[in-house]
Amino acid sequence: MAVTDIASRTYDHNWRLDPIVRSLLDTDFYKLLMLQMIRHLYPEVPVTFGLVNRSSVRIADDIDEDELRAQLDHTRTLRFAPKELIWLAGNTFYGKTQMFSPDFITWLKDFRLPDYELRKVDGQYDLHFHGTWTHTTLWEIPALTIINELRSRAVMRGQGRFALDVLYARAKAKLWGKVERLSALPDLVVSDFGTRRRHSFLWQRWCVEALKEGLGKRFIGTSNVLLAMDNDLEAIGTNAHELPMVLAALADDDAGVASAPYRVLEDWQAHYDGNLRIALPDAFGTTAFLERAPDWLAAWTGFRPDSAPPIAGGEQIIQWWHSKGVDPREKLLIFSDGMDVDSIESTYRHFDGRVRLSFGWGTNLTNDFRDCAPFTDHGLDPISLVCKVTEADGRPAVKLSDNPAKATGAPAEIARYLRIFGEAGRTVTPVSV
Amino acid sequence: MAVTDIASRTYDHNWRLDPIVRSLLDTDFYKLLMLQMIRHLYPEVPVTFGLVNRSSVRIADDIDEDELRAQLDHTRTLRFAPKELIWLAGNTFYGKTQMFSPDFITWLKDFRLPDYELRKVDGQYDLHFHGTWTHTTLWEIPALTIINELRSRAVMRGQGRFALDVLYARAKAKLWGKVERLSALPDLVVSDFGTRRRHSFLWQRWCVEALKEGLGKRFIGTSNVLLAMDNDLEAIGTNAHELPMVLAALADDDAGVASAPYRVLEDWQAHYDGNLRIALPDAFGTTAFLERAPDWLAAWTGFRPDSAPPIAGGEQIIQWWHSKGVDPREKLLIFSDGMDVDSIESTYRHFDGRVRLSFGWGTNLTNDFRDCAPFTDHGLDPISLVCKVTEADGRPAVKLSDNPAKATGAPAEIARYLRIFGEAGRTVTPVSV
Repeated sequence: MAVTDIASRTYDHNWRLDPIVRSLLDTDFYKLLMLQMIRHLYPEVPVTFGLVNRSSVRIADDIDEDELRAQLDHTRTLRFAPKELIWLAGNTFYGKTQMFSPDFITWLKDFRLPDYELRKVDGQYDLHFHGTWTHTTLWEIPALTIINELRSRAVMRGQGRFALDVLYARAKAKLWGKVERLSALPDLVVSDFGTRRRHSFLWQRWCVEALKEGLGKRFIGTSNVLLAMDNDLEAIGTNAHELPMVLAALADDDAGVASAPYRVLEDWQAHYDGNLRIALPDAFGTTAFLERAPDWLAAWTGFRPDSAPPIAGGEQIIQWWHSKGVDPREKLLIFSDGMDVDSIESTYRHFDGRVRLSFGWGTNLTNDFRDCAPFTDHGLDPISLVCKVTEADGRPAVKLSDNPAKATGAPAEIARYLRIFGEAGRTVTPVSV
Repeated sequence: MAVTDIASRTYDHNWRLDPIVRSLLDTDFYKLLMLQMIRHLYPEVPVTFGLVNRSSVRIADDIDEDELRAQLDHTRTLRFAPKELIWLAGNTFYGKTQMFSPDFITWLKDFRLPDYELRKVDGQYDLHFHGTWTHTTLWEIPALTIINELRSRAVMRGQGRFALDVLYARAKAKLWGKVERLSALPDLVVSDFGTRRRHSFLWQRWCVEALKEGLGKRFIGTSNVLLAMDNDLEAIGTNAHELPMVLAALADDDAGVASAPYRVLEDWQAHYDGNLRIALPDAFGTTAFLERAPDWLAAWTGFRPDSAPPIAGGEQIIQWWHSKGVDPREKLLIFSDGMDVDSIESTYRHFDGRVRLSFGWGTNLTNDFRDCAPFTDHGLDPISLVCKVTEADGRPAVKLSDNPAKATGAPAEIARYLRIFGEAGRTVTPVSV
């Protein structure tokens, strides 16, 4: 007896929409931590987020505009579900209960994503989100996951059943090979940071399961809140560049811009403690940041160097700790910039025993389909796509980064920030993801 | 809405038996070609087949006797289905219609496999099939596929869902890597000969699909009759060692033994022509066979050297063709002894342009799970298991082979055959599959 469930088959072949984002928790954990603080301190600030394609790939040639609008529209219909809010309220994050205040949870009940502005310009999508920071900030991750998954789907649309079977078999075999290599590092600490640039939601879910099965206690959790909830994993993340970017953009003068990164730290430590006190030093260059960093920052748990080459960037921070009389072996470095097995291994070997280490493994975990497609290369390589703050209260926002290839903002404004922060320590490194 | 088909789920968890063999066509094509001839010429000869484990693996420790009996019993309930007989009668094999006579097809209607004799002896299964040659011969392939798949199942029983997912992903990636290598050989001709030692029926089906998708016209078909029918592929195969083995065993004296291999050829060419005229030279040693081979054999399409090292064995036959004044470029060599990508490539490169070549790819196609299991090695390596004629009409049967490691039969009888045929040209090569 051949068994085909007729209802499933009929339904599968008549989908109006296969939603890419099915929950507002399908986002990075740090967005919620930042949002709680933003709502508290900057509830009325208007902030615009915009898509930035750092690659030359003409994504609007691959992705149909109607499909993109349908996915964005669907995401706007989402609300935090009762069980999701119960979990946010009742779960322990970073060892702490009630990380989110009852007041914040109540506010989330009515949350919905604001409208979007979409235009096709010269093979690219001009996609912006206008509104209060409290609302536009939650567009970052769904906007990116939608674009990235629509790209994957466009490439795979022409593939036969068998080619797809081989594609995923190879991707699984490839990832498992990486897992085996990483499991040879006894004190490795790694988490999934791959939501934004994942191949697809289902593939990220598989990757997370692979790390859980293959790395055991070396795998500490995922930045994806939905996957953390569904799998009873730790939700991982702290804060992002948008905080210093917005605060600098809001500043009235150059001195205010210069002090913005430290006001962020003050804001943060007023809200969070312990392992959440991780500083992101590179928004306007790590060298400038450390030079003027307050002594009390040495008491924080650690840093997340996110654009300097890992070994050089880590050494720079260790040197700073030494200058503050602090033993780096009690401190934490989290590496999360385009890491993959080779760089995780070399960084681990370099720093092992000298500092506590953690790796946020992103795009090369959840979207490495290079050489996996049978027959030909089908353009499944990930691209460097971000969704960044472009304006705050009508003023342009800027990120300098330690890597000029990752800078965002208007050229004139970038030049002004470079005058304020200097260019020391910036190194151009090709950005692949 | 989470969808689980409750009927399927309930059924899946309550299987009485998951049959390994579900059709009498799930066998090698040459069995049917030989059977038609055997029924015509030797309808009453009693022949015993028996399992021979050439490895040291204690298969009775892994395979439960009740399960083995249940599978063997189930296979005995099978009959050729009407649609199968219609296909055998109506399909074109090797370019010829009505390969099987209406009389033979009618006879198959009532065919059923005879009983078996099973005992557990010192970690091995003593498994024999007694009856007329026409009936015991069809046990060879199902007996082997059952034992091999029960071994796979026993190993996989303890594996989790995820480990199995990685296992098959890796096996698929591995096979596809082989397919890509082989697709670089422009004039390659390859067929699936992997039924008997396959990992499982479903896996063989996937392998066949992979060759079809990846090798295009280089893939000419499969020895598995059921897969050939289901996928409209060519059924491939001609004849096997059992023919000279039985005829030699039936001989009244040494002269009769010595001439048995040539009487087989006479029988065969009275029944089949064209591309089915492929001689198997190695039953009692290729050197002896060629020395005394009749001139008219040079008019046959080719040879299937099955135990000599491929290049040496092929050269020996090419030399024989030259000695008969025949141009090897019009002749065919079929290599089928434990071939894999390396040996296919080297053999292809060695003979390309000098002789027509074809490869029967067996165990290393359909049962290569080496290094595929995650976590540990779970004993999925294939073993060298055969099911051979042990007696004909009460007399012991012998195979010498070009490789003494592949000889079967009682030692005294092997010694007698070696006196008759000589030992020239025999080379010990380790037998892995």
